[in-house]
Amino acid sequence: MISKPLPQHFTVLVRAIPVSDGVSVGDAVDKFFKEYHASTYLSHTIVRQTGKLRRLLNDAESICTKLTNLNHVRRSTGDPPRKLGLFSRNDLVGEYQKRLEDLEENVRMEQSDATRRQEIPAAFVSFRSRYSAANAVYIRQSDNPTEWQTEEAPDPHDVYWPFFSTSFMERWIAKFVVFVASVLLILVFLLVVAFVQGLTYLEQLEKWLPFLRNILEIAVVSQLVTGYLPSVILHVLSSCVPSIMKLFSTMQGFVSVSGIEQSACNKMLRFTIWTAFFANVLTGSALVQFEIFLNPKELPSKLAVLVPAQASFFIAYVVTSWTSITSELTQITALFCHLWGKCAKCCKRDYSKAPSMPYYSEIPRILLFGLIGLAYFIVAPLILPFVLVYFCLGYFIFRNQLFNVYAPKYDTGGKFWPVVHNTTIFSLVVLHIIAIGVFGIKKLPLASSLLLPLPPLTLLFNEFCRNRFLPIFEAYSTESLLKKDREEQSKPDMAEFFSNLVTAYCDPALKPFQRASNSDERTAPLLASLSSSR
Amino acid sequence: MISKPLPQHFTVLVRAIPVSDGVSVGDAVDKFFKEYHASTYLSHTIVRQTGKLRRLLNDAESICTKLTNLNHVRRSTGDPPRKLGLFSRNDLVGEYQKRLEDLEENVRMEQSDATRRQEIPAAFVSFRSRYSAANAVYIRQSDNPTEWQTEEAPDPHDVYWPFFSTSFMERWIAKFVVFVASVLLILVFLLVVAFVQGLTYLEQLEKWLPFLRNILEIAVVSQLVTGYLPSVILHVLSSCVPSIMKLFSTMQGFVSVSGIEQSACNKMLRFTIWTAFFANVLTGSALVQFEIFLNPKELPSKLAVLVPAQASFFIAYVVTSWTSITSELTQITALFCHLWGKCAKCCKRDYSKAPSMPYYSEIPRILLFGLIGLAYFIVAPLILPFVLVYFCLGYFIFRNQLFNVYAPKYDTGGKFWPVVHNTTIFSLVVLHIIAIGVFGIKKLPLASSLLLPLPPLTLLFNEFCRNRFLPIFEAYSTESLLKKDREEQSKPDMAEFFSNLVTAYCDPALKPFQRASNSDERTAPLLASLSSSR
Repeated sequence: MISKPLPQHFTVLVRAIPVSDGVSVGDAVDKFFKEYHASTYLSHTIVRQTGKLRRLLNDAESICTKLTNLNHVRRSTGDPPRKLGLFSRNDLVGEYQKRLEDLEENVRMEQSDATRRQEIPAAFVSFRSRYSAANAVYIRQSDNPTEWQTEEAPDPHDVYWPFFSTSFMERWIAKFVVFVASVLLILVFLLVVAFVQGLTYLEQLEKWLPFLRNILEIAVVSQLVTGYLPSVILHVLSSCVPSIMKLFSTMQGFVSVSGIEQSACNKMLRFTIWTAFFANVLTGSALVQFEIFLNPKELPSKLAVLVPAQASFFIAYVVTSWTSITSELTQITALFCHLWGKCAKCCKRDYSKAPSMPYYSEIPRILLFGLIGLAYFIVAPLILPFVLVYFCLGYFIFRNQLFNVYAPKYDTGGKFWPVVHNTTIFSLVVLHIIAIGVFGIKKLPLASSLLLPLPPLTLLFNEFCRNRFLPIFEAYSTESLLKKDREEQSKPDMAEFFSNLVTAYCDPALKPFQRASNSDERTAPLLASLSSSR
Repeated sequence: MISKPLPQHFTVLVRAIPVSDGVSVGDAVDKFFKEYHASTYLSHTIVRQTGKLRRLLNDAESICTKLTNLNHVRRSTGDPPRKLGLFSRNDLVGEYQKRLEDLEENVRMEQSDATRRQEIPAAFVSFRSRYSAANAVYIRQSDNPTEWQTEEAPDPHDVYWPFFSTSFMERWIAKFVVFVASVLLILVFLLVVAFVQGLTYLEQLEKWLPFLRNILEIAVVSQLVTGYLPSVILHVLSSCVPSIMKLFSTMQGFVSVSGIEQSACNKMLRFTIWTAFFANVLTGSALVQFEIFLNPKELPSKLAVLVPAQASFFIAYVVTSWTSITSELTQITALFCHLWGKCAKCCKRDYSKAPSMPYYSEIPRILLFGLIGLAYFIVAPLILPFVLVYFCLGYFIFRNQLFNVYAPKYDTGGKFWPVVHNTTIFSLVVLHIIAIGVFGIKKLPLASSLLLPLPPLTLLFNEFCRNRFLPIFEAYSTESLLKKDREEQSKPDMAEFFSNLVTAYCDPALKPFQRASNSDERTAPLLASLSSSR
């Protein structure tokens, strides 16, 4: 399994292919790679503009889903059709089927069109060996650095096809918009956090919302509001952010779903650490928060005062997270979505596919608890059992979810590990700074100065890890590439692999349109995915 | 000339070669490269520890120079030896010759020793084609990233051999020491600048040095002191810094002289812009200067006030630079060194070699004048003619020097150009910021806000240049490498080139020791270098 050849190891994505008049992109690619990689060049797949086609296919798919839903409802209510609903329902089915046939016709026309024109100057180029593919990626191809740009190709199922339809200018503008939007999102969230922090002071709330005074005077309600409500609000709002961040990353123009999710994970991490940790600890306007970091000399003592003050809030935050992590087990959100979809009978989501693990929302959350645990390690050790319970719950729940619920959409290749490593190093340095500050405040200059070498030593260790381990996450070595190439040379099934490789990077929108016509498709794929995941 | 194959194009420097017991470094290199680069691997040269040997050779060389000087003096004072000086001079010659013979014997013993042991786990590995050498550089060789580290080999004459004798730990410590020393140097220089700025106020000076009061009351002297002396002091002190910076870079452990000079150039640039421009403009303690940059909103208006205030100082500074650039023509420093060496009769420097262009001290200086010209472009245009005269003088003088005086020690390969480009972009942004500040102070908000898009547009242009041109400075492309390889395949003189390549990277300290014994060597090489430079 481990040494099975995969298409992405033999393929590179070439962009910015220069095309002269009268020559197609395909011919240009053929000419270039036959000249400079004559012995190892295998084939290429030109990327085509399929935006319109994809919209048509989406429409067709949603009508298919609606039809299936209708059929399912008809079957579940008994084969002999009810008198009352029969006419309208049959009408609906007929109308949907007519629209579906029109769409199919359109799709077929569009597909035959697309293969003739609308080429994008990008192509997936496949090679006969892993080493030559690596050569094409890591050595600049053309004298002009803006032409023939190469990068590693993603897994064929992982390619984010809509990206290729956007022009360079659109992507450039999108990047700028995403930057502005991210900043705005953080600012809006900081306002929310300030409001949430205000809730812990009951008088403040009574002043804001005077009509609540009578209710707030009940002891249970007031305790609930001050102790539990802020964390709940924060949790609920935070749960909306990952999808927004993913949308932002999608707009930025990554060629693969895994790339989008990695970028979203980084965005979420920065957002989480800033809004959920520092904004709550520092409590003040964004400018005041920023000024604290501009004065590095007073940072330890300020953190040592501010961090312990929020200990009770973070204990409550960790305890509320137990609920959120158990809701992962019950998949309440998915259940509500499903019910809503059933009611509205127009849900687009296909429930026959198992969901994939949302790494970009879960990894930053878990890392935040690591940071909280380490930051309160010295000033409020009471938080540690709660964090420990969270991690234990998380271990068992995510273990179960990964084995039995989620189906991986792509192979992460361990690319999320450097993120975890860097955040842990950051958390450790925060711990050191707080410890130095605490000992400074307690008038223990010796202890404080004995701790001073710790942050540099931690960063030195990080530097060592960057040199020793990070390159492994980034690229394969000549040694391993050539070893695998040699192992595979003698294998008989490589001929078949290469013949499949030629068509591996075909845009799914250009594949012949297949209408799922059997009435059992509602349950059959679910069973299939269940049996395959076992 | 342009397509002549050079050893560095076919060679890579491999470091951190893992050696198991009983296997020599040479065998390990042979085994590794014969396994993974079987078809293109040509040969290797192991680097050896030659620190002691190099010290012996230096001693021998200095004695040689002394002997030559003595012979030269004896000849110039006439062949029949003077009675009075004869005995002692002959004694000296005899003693030197005896010491030289001892050293030669030592060198020979050490050389035969060195070839047997003292191997360093580093080697120059040569390939049969440029493309395969590029492959070895840009794709990680070993599964373990800390082993078999490859980088581009420098020109054989450009290799800085002493570097290989230092251990990894020594280099690590040296880097840290260099960092601390650089910071100290800037701080010390800032104090000097503060003193120099104090000189422009005569009362201050009279208070510091009361005994000068009588002299300072003379009109000419006081004008000279306030107008000219500060610039002179700054120039004289600045002229010592490049050699210190080069020493720092040498300690940092670069494998080539060109690498050392590039690093020194960057250090000098940062030093020059900070101490000669900003320290003079901002005039205050380092902390105050730093705080101005922490408040980006008020930076334009502050610069718009502070920059014009120092216009007269910078005009004087530019005018004094005319002298310094003409001293480049007369080579006064070299002349004094030569005279001093003649007097002391123990000068180590070999005057038979033409000096090389000190890029690391000249490029930052010229770029500083670019910055001054652009910064005062709006607030004090009077400075522009002076800067223009400086650049015209510089063009003619350096043109002459480069053609007739300096002999290039290495091919820069245009690697200094990105430095010039980046500094120019920086100067332009400074110009924009000052312009925005000036219009803001003059209460012209429209003009000020119309200028706001300029800095982002300049940075966007810089980004374009980074993508379009910078990769060309960093590596050759597959296209050009393969084209050259194919052109050369058919040439008959490649066999000779490859046979020379095998021995190209031999440590000069390990070459047989040749004593210059002919009495004409004092003048002959100078003539040769003159004729070759024409």
